[in-house]
Amino acid sequence: MAAPTTAQLKFVQSLLQKKYRSEHGYFLVEGAKNLQELADSGWPVERYWISEGFLNDLPSARNWDPMPEIVPLGTLERVSSLQNNHTGVAVVPMPDYGRFNRAEGEWVLALDQVRDPGNLGTIIRIADWYGIRKIVLSPDSVEPTNPKVVAASMGSFFRVKVYEKGLAAIFAEDPDVVLGAYMDGENLHSARLPKGGGYLLMGSESHGISEALSGFVTQRLSIPRFGEAESLNVGVATAVILDAVRRG
Amino acid sequence: MAAPTTAQLKFVQSLLQKKYRSEHGYFLVEGAKNLQELADSGWPVERYWISEGFLNDLPSARNWDPMPEIVPLGTLERVSSLQNNHTGVAVVPMPDYGRFNRAEGEWVLALDQVRDPGNLGTIIRIADWYGIRKIVLSPDSVEPTNPKVVAASMGSFFRVKVYEKGLAAIFAEDPDVVLGAYMDGENLHSARLPKGGGYLLMGSESHGISEALSGFVTQRLSIPRFGEAESLNVGVATAVILDAVRRG
Repeated sequence: MAAPTTAQLKFVQSLLQKKYRSEHGYFLVEGAKNLQELADSGWPVERYWISEGFLNDLPSARNWDPMPEIVPLGTLERVSSLQNNHTGVAVVPMPDYGRFNRAEGEWVLALDQVRDPGNLGTIIRIADWYGIRKIVLSPDSVEPTNPKVVAASMGSFFRVKVYEKGLAAIFAEDPDVVLGAYMDGENLHSARLPKGGGYLLMGSESHGISEALSGFVTQRLSIPRFGEAESLNVGVATAVILDAVRRG
Repeated sequence: MAAPTTAQLKFVQSLLQKKYRSEHGYFLVEGAKNLQELADSGWPVERYWISEGFLNDLPSARNWDPMPEIVPLGTLERVSSLQNNHTGVAVVPMPDYGRFNRAEGEWVLALDQVRDPGNLGTIIRIADWYGIRKIVLSPDSVEPTNPKVVAASMGSFFRVKVYEKGLAAIFAEDPDVVLGAYMDGENLHSARLPKGGGYLLMGSESHGISEALSGFVTQRLSIPRFGEAESLNVGVATAVILDAVRRG
């Protein structure tokens, strides 16, 4: 084990901040499940730092490309957004997904002002479960390479493309089917949902879908409530509606 | 504003720990939404400590019973499980729900080894949305009056009764309908679900439903997967299955 140089440590640490991620063009991947999925994904990786304990648990990590460097636990803690990181961290070049387009028949998830990194990560994982390959995210949302987003996605970050783009421009070009989640829409259980693909638009945790976007919504949906909770978490609501969309 | 005495502060602070909650018979409620729901719930409250800012935002809090005491923000931070608590905290006697029983036709949620407090809080909120009034929780789960559970429930804690009780004993007495969530069960979208009530059993985040309980399951269900994520979070899965149960 060789402790990283101060310059290396400072560089990796700087990627905890959005400003330096965009300046350097790299982001961080943390935790056992995410590292394993990253290694399996074929994504280019700049550097793996892992603990000795993690390598003992997963000796095959020696075969990852590039080969992981063993670092002290204290180093991992200083470059991690997690409360405890006993496994490792990877430095990964920012993905470039190119220009967004929706394929014929494809369902795309559109997120308006989702601000909580844990929520966005959970939604990426849910999208991956339901076979959604692309998310468009309004630019006033949490930044998708925030380490907490990547961590909460449990590896799904490497399979779902997240595009940051103004949603009004997207809907204006491709307006046929925009399902929107509201508190007072049509009952999801009895609604006839379109089969040919389109967008599912979910609003922010606290304010729902913004006025400016509501004009593009072609079908307003609500998850029927049988009790008294005021709302569902945006990730939970996304899963319930995607499940209904896939149920057809 | 009068700063609380050291003895008061130590008492409230001690309730962050399970040991002292059960010793003293009180638990903590934190955050604006939860305090408001608590005040509206009719539950007995021992003490409210709130910030001056919160009272300015919500002057009607003056009418809560007992009347809230204004405390410095520094005090709130010392008695809170939240990273930031700018609103307040309440000290509440532990509820006593008496003996658990399931009413004719009632759906009850059964949780096996749910260890993450955020997950349990989210599940309580989901149960409340879907009109589930009772949860039975295996004794090796997170303790339900953990302040993070209560906080994550967003006020639903005061409407959903959580019983800690061995699940095998419950199912042995009332065995007719125990739906269980598995990775390899019947497709939820095509399954015929019973209409007369029963239990929905959800397993732990990492190990699923334990062997000892699987013998009681009368119908094994799976949420169909259309993509590649390995699993869904236990809260998300609970919502999708409860939605299907209520869809009928």
